[in-house]
Amino acid sequence: MNKILIFGVGLIGGSIALKVKQMNLFEEIVGISRTNGTNLAPFVKSGMLDRATENFEMEIESSNLIILATPVAQTEIIFEKLYPLLAEDTIVTDAGSTKTNVDLAAKKFLKEKYNQFIGSHPIAGSEKHGPEAAKKDLFKNKNIIITPHSQSKSEDLKKIQSFWKSLGGVTSVMDVKLHDEIFSTVSHLPHLLAFGLVNLINDKKNKAILLEFAASGFRDFSRIAASSAEMWRDICLANKESIITDLHLYKNEVESIIAMIDQGSEEKLLSYLLKASQTRKKWNKE
Amino acid sequence: MNKILIFGVGLIGGSIALKVKQMNLFEEIVGISRTNGTNLAPFVKSGMLDRATENFEMEIESSNLIILATPVAQTEIIFEKLYPLLAEDTIVTDAGSTKTNVDLAAKKFLKEKYNQFIGSHPIAGSEKHGPEAAKKDLFKNKNIIITPHSQSKSEDLKKIQSFWKSLGGVTSVMDVKLHDEIFSTVSHLPHLLAFGLVNLINDKKNKAILLEFAASGFRDFSRIAASSAEMWRDICLANKESIITDLHLYKNEVESIIAMIDQGSEEKLLSYLLKASQTRKKWNKE
Repeated sequence: MNKILIFGVGLIGGSIALKVKQMNLFEEIVGISRTNGTNLAPFVKSGMLDRATENFEMEIESSNLIILATPVAQTEIIFEKLYPLLAEDTIVTDAGSTKTNVDLAAKKFLKEKYNQFIGSHPIAGSEKHGPEAAKKDLFKNKNIIITPHSQSKSEDLKKIQSFWKSLGGVTSVMDVKLHDEIFSTVSHLPHLLAFGLVNLINDKKNKAILLEFAASGFRDFSRIAASSAEMWRDICLANKESIITDLHLYKNEVESIIAMIDQGSEEKLLSYLLKASQTRKKWNKE
Repeated sequence: MNKILIFGVGLIGGSIALKVKQMNLFEEIVGISRTNGTNLAPFVKSGMLDRATENFEMEIESSNLIILATPVAQTEIIFEKLYPLLAEDTIVTDAGSTKTNVDLAAKKFLKEKYNQFIGSHPIAGSEKHGPEAAKKDLFKNKNIIITPHSQSKSEDLKKIQSFWKSLGGVTSVMDVKLHDEIFSTVSHLPHLLAFGLVNLINDKKNKAILLEFAASGFRDFSRIAASSAEMWRDICLANKESIITDLHLYKNEVESIIAMIDQGSEEKLLSYLLKASQTRKKWNKE
């Protein structure tokens, strides 16, 4: 029996299941549901999962690959429960947006089995969440960061790389700390800035008229502010240090924009805006 | 002869020309080119314009509608040149993103002919610019703000409303000051914040790797940072007061996000993120 066990069947976990099914990568796909969490029965019925269960203890020993795709705050408790039951050749990975915290949790709770864990971060987020939003091609041509550590086995790294490639992803290997610094700047920071703009509008007296006249610029800028609040709270706390550093740097940008406008520094302002505009025009990933 | 004269044949001016042509709203569409500006000959050849000329003085008296769709910084000089030549029943409007400054310039330079000017702001911006980006359906179902003043003639207001409706727009009438406050918050602020994020990345040592791993969240957030630097410099200076007020309010948001993360205030952070997320989910204009 060749089994994949997915904790957290949401956008990411569900999309993994759909593609694994299509590619026939495992004989059995089992989703773990939370007490009072999303009812996974419809996703078994639809064929996304072969089975769904709350009794994950029964499933661990017989799983070949275990994926944690839950909010990061649940990582520790899951590792703790995995530890006594994990078979020797099972590989554990995750799909979290922050990696240092997950790696530390794996080290602490998987103990001598820490070498069976290798972190992953599929860069395939969306403001949509839940298994309803899952799609089999979510990972197609998307970057997947894999974060092995000093105790990782090279054959496990190869298996994890090959797994994500089978789902359509493009894999890169990176150190956890570097990962968290990079994604603080290019992902966590813009998310928080988008939440911030929407709340600035929320607190204005003329909020209704503002939202009425907000148009495509606002729409795209703030799309990511519709993201899961629970997930982003967890990311903020998990990557606290890098995020605070970036928020301070950003505050400096805002202050320097204020100063240029206030002083009417036409040339400085033009060259500031031009620099950003040129960089953004050159960056044209879609 | 029924003639429309367009100063500034870029995204907006070009799109006006295309739709006027399709709807056959005027007998002649004349575009004014700047010395050393975009060569408009190809757009006469393509049929967007009937004629293009640098000698706008020759055209003014015989025009029924004159539209200023140039960067706002050129507004004053154009009004000054229009003044002596403007026929009694010609209507002048513009398409600028800021309205107080344009209204003040009209008052100052059109003198007793100020009553022939009514401001317009089609909310149909794009990070793309230039006449190549023009399209005839740019204004379809888009909000068009019209800002008449105390001396405006009600029949002119009706004509301007009817003109924009013919182009597909949905018109609203608004006071210039209110217009500038609203668009500071929902448009000017997010544009500057997007420019700011790209420049924060520009100033990082690992800029190349950051841009390599930036994904869809960054893409949408920063799309508007590819906008015209010249245009946005002009907007910043034209709507200085409201924009600075909003940038200060935004700095407060950033500071409060820093404080919540720094203090590990899980509940506060969750309710802050949830508030923004709920507002953004409800706002679902496309």
